[in-house]
Amino acid sequence: MSAKSPLLVQANDFFFSGLHIAGNTSNPVGSKVTSVTVAQLPGLNTLGIALARVDYGPWGINPSHTHPRASEILTVLEGSLFVGFVTSNPENRLITKILQKGDVFTFPVGLVHFQQNVGDGNAVAIAALSSQNPGVITISNAVFGSNAPIASDILTKSFQLDKNIVDQLQAKF
Amino acid sequence: MSAKSPLLVQANDFFFSGLHIAGNTSNPVGSKVTSVTVAQLPGLNTLGIALARVDYGPWGINPSHTHPRASEILTVLEGSLFVGFVTSNPENRLITKILQKGDVFTFPVGLVHFQQNVGDGNAVAIAALSSQNPGVITISNAVFGSNAPIASDILTKSFQLDKNIVDQLQAKF
Amino acid sequence: MSAKSPLLVQANDFFFSGLHIAGNTSNPVGSKVTSVTVAQLPGLNTLGIALARVDYGPWGINPSHTHPRASEILTVLEGSLFVGFVTSNPENRLITKILQKGDVFTFPVGLVHFQQNVGDGNAVAIAALSSQNPGVITISNAVFGSNAPIASDILTKSFQLDKNIVDQLQAKF
Amino acid sequence: MSAKSPLLVQANDFFFSGLHIAGNTSNPVGSKVTSVTVAQLPGLNTLGIALARVDYGPWGINPSHTHPRASEILTVLEGSLFVGFVTSNPENRLITKILQKGDVFTFPVGLVHFQQNVGDGNAVAIAALSSQNPGVITISNAVFGSNAPIASDILTKSFQLDKNIVDQLQAKF
Amino acid sequence: MSAKSPLLVQANDFFFSGLHIAGNTSNPVGSKVTSVTVAQLPGLNTLGIALARVDYGPWGINPSHTHPRASEILTVLEGSLFVGFVTSNPENRLITKILQKGDVFTFPVGLVHFQQNVGDGNAVAIAALSSQNPGVITISNAVFGSNAPIASDILTKSFQLDKNIVDQLQAKF
Amino acid sequence: MSAKSPLLVQANDFFFSGLHIAGNTSNPVGSKVTSVTVAQLPGLNTLGIALARVDYGPWGINPSHTHPRASEILTVLEGSLFVGFVTSNPENRLITKILQKGDVFTFPVGLVHFQQNVGDGNAVAIAALSSQNPGVITISNAVFGSNAPIASDILTKSFQLDKNIVDQLQAKF
Repeated sequence: MSAKSPLLVQANDFFFSGLHIAGNTSNPVGSKVTSVTVAQLPGLNTLGIALARVDYGPWGINPSHTHPRASEILTVLEGSLFVGFVTSNPENRLITKILQKGDVFTFPVGLVHFQQNVGDGNAVAIAALSSQNPGVITISNAVFGSNAPIASDILTKSFQLDKNIVDQLQAKF
Repeated sequence: MSAKSPLLVQANDFFFSGLHIAGNTSNPVGSKVTSVTVAQLPGLNTLGIALARVDYGPWGINPSHTHPRASEILTVLEGSLFVGFVTSNPENRLITKILQKGDVFTFPVGLVHFQQNVGDGNAVAIAALSSQNPGVITISNAVFGSNAPIASDILTKSFQLDKNIVDQLQAKF
Repeated sequence: MSAKSPLLVQANDFFFSGLHIAGNTSNPVGSKVTSVTVAQLPGLNTLGIALARVDYGPWGINPSHTHPRASEILTVLEGSLFVGFVTSNPENRLITKILQKGDVFTFPVGLVHFQQNVGDGNAVAIAALSSQNPGVITISNAVFGSNAPIASDILTKSFQLDKNIVDQLQAKF
Repeated sequence: MSAKSPLLVQANDFFFSGLHIAGNTSNPVGSKVTSVTVAQLPGLNTLGIALARVDYGPWGINPSHTHPRASEILTVLEGSLFVGFVTSNPENRLITKILQKGDVFTFPVGLVHFQQNVGDGNAVAIAALSSQNPGVITISNAVFGSNAPIASDILTKSFQLDKNIVDQLQAKF
Repeated sequence: MSAKSPLLVQANDFFFSGLHIAGNTSNPVGSKVTSVTVAQLPGLNTLGIALARVDYGPWGINPSHTHPRASEILTVLEGSLFVGFVTSNPENRLITKILQKGDVFTFPVGLVHFQQNVGDGNAVAIAALSSQNPGVITISNAVFGSNAPIASDILTKSFQLDKNIVDQLQAKF
Repeated sequence: MSAKSPLLVQANDFFFSGLHIAGNTSNPVGSKVTSVTVAQLPGLNTLGIALARVDYGPWGINPSHTHPRASEILTVLEGSLFVGFVTSNPENRLITKILQKGDVFTFPVGLVHFQQNVGDGNAVAIAALSSQNPGVITISNAVFGSNAPIASDILTKSFQLDKNIVDQLQAKF
């Protein structure tokens, strides 16, 4: 239960509204995540669980990301998704599946994963996470969009990219 | 990840199909739970999370129950639900809320909770649980429907019921 | 250790007195639990353990209950107890045993369990719990005695009881 | 619950008998511990709890020891005990209390602790531990009685003892 | 302790040799990690800890990576390192420090982090991890070097890269 | 991450300096531990890991001790160490190994362990611990050097020592 005394908790401490509202996918990646974690729903404190809705415009993607403190289980409410995750070094196996409405897939804690809308219209998924504070690390943000930027020589060497491409990427994110 | 070696896991180890199919609510309580735990999706092993779909016919209820090893977070996909949980002794406070489509509510680990369809038609919810093996204890089954039955003098004293009512209850469950 | 600095803790932070005193069993269920949790013994904070004494008058019962955050191990100091727990859905197996002085039994986390004095005189047990804040949910209190009451149509459907019986039960608890 | 399937568990998996029997305290330290851990009671597997009975002859002691994987809570059933534990470096504070029948004391995980019978006759305590496999490290056994012995120059330096005293100690344990 | 019985464990179950040997840094990133996890040292099973040595050639980097199941603490044995990690969305703050011999830095679980040799010669660090099986996800491997490759349209959209640059990257890793 | 908001953390919260400085081993045991736990490095809060440097003068020992809340993994940077730990009751097996530069050894949580310099000159090791607050219990301090002292009759019985030897020991520590 939340850190409030059981004598003082109210129903609204355990309540959140709005997960039926489609997220605005008019953005470069064509997807939007609406999260319900302890920051939005204080009663989740210590409960070890959170929820999210993910909207995908046509061909939208939820770009490669990790949750540093949670595993994820996702089910498709509408549309078709191509989903995948990559196992750790040294295998770096890509495990993928095309999901239809009602299909369920799970992404183990900390692994890089993504979803892509591969159907004709929009797609919607509900994802659950095994922490009230799972965190999200979008790889492109963490690598090319950090604030301040990572030194370009580190990125050129890490990603074997020309410096001018790194500069362009850092300008975008 | 599952107990399989990362070299051997396949996408189907992390996959389940069928959560779009409405459960059959033609039963005395008017609801049906479709679970996706480690028993249905082996890749959930050690991941600490599971999912379920709950269907509710008109006025159907998901009767008072607990999850012995998990907290729950639930969102309404269709319809209206009256939901609640009861805090531990000595307060036994009933915390309730009427949920509409898109609303989210959370039930702390081990507490008695229920949902009731209070809308005009069917209702559907997705629930997530903080264990790959959460367990479900339906109170009426555990108390009046166990196999073998709990001795009726224990139940009459526990519930301050006449013995013939206890006998009737045990015959039903 | 407690949240106090190790420089400041005193022996009394780790001490509680009175577990030799028989609880008053002159009540409808004929039993009384005396708990030693972090609420009574602050030094238990973070230690993951608690203790309780249970007194049973003749034919007294410790009615069906769960601990939402703890497993239990119990030993009989005096008398004879009939004890049991019920496994989760779908089996709902009742696992029981008659315990004599010196016998030990364990109740897994979150499962519904009970004890009944089946000897000639009083009975006494010591129970240990795997949390400093285990919680107790007495099923009859949580179901029929919550504050406010659970709507009677939910209970009639959950327990397949006539509404007037539910009304009587809610009046008692 | 135990690693057995819930379909196969039997009441005896959760049962142990004999904790009413006084341990034989005719030994150099004048005390005897009777343990109920997962080794004696298989149903404790994964439950995170264990129990023990400790008997103390007149002036008997339960010598300085630690539990590497458990905190402890103890209650006195008979007699009077002088109990204590020592906090970690650098304070090494000795926290002590004289316990009478019905008193309760707790020993935080991993700390060196002891009990001594300071009453007129025998004493008996029940102790609970926050692991199904708590382990016991009797300091004198681990330091002077290991098999093979710790090199005497290590002990003479550790304990600032003359080598011939170390030799005598190692011969005793 | 390891899954072996305490009666059967041998010193070699808890032993590993070779962490004094400099890793070969003649590779594109100019660094080499030598790991001591449960795969190399079976006695680490259940102990929740592991160790690694990291060698860095001149200007070598340990490229952006995460540990999906562990926090890290690192100390510099030789040379100078520029180290950093990036916090989660939405801040994506880059937290950096230049470390000299004897300096210590910590990287919270799951966050993207890196080290770069910024001294005149080689550099060496010892890192400890809070899991016996921490895992390593090198971002470039997971994103551009997975086996099979992630579809290029996902990467172009995720990283806002031209398709021919993605193709070049996937050819490199 | 530390209890500070991710918006407010600074690099210095994750930083410690000085682990390259040899500890002063001019003391009765001939060794010195320099610890980096949450007390020295606040960013370790919740991260479950800590580090230490141990210096050993010629024939110096790190005397028999336990960590009540952590397992340990150690690697030798310089010199030769004789290391060991003792398993729990009843076996009390002594598990030992002579370590050279680059060798690694692990000490399971809570077990009594020690290291001794058995080389020609000084020795240095780096140890990692599986808790940000592992604690250290030096057996001789806890047993003979507590503040206030443990009653000598308890020690004489525990260790089968003459009272005058106990008195001498308590005077030393």
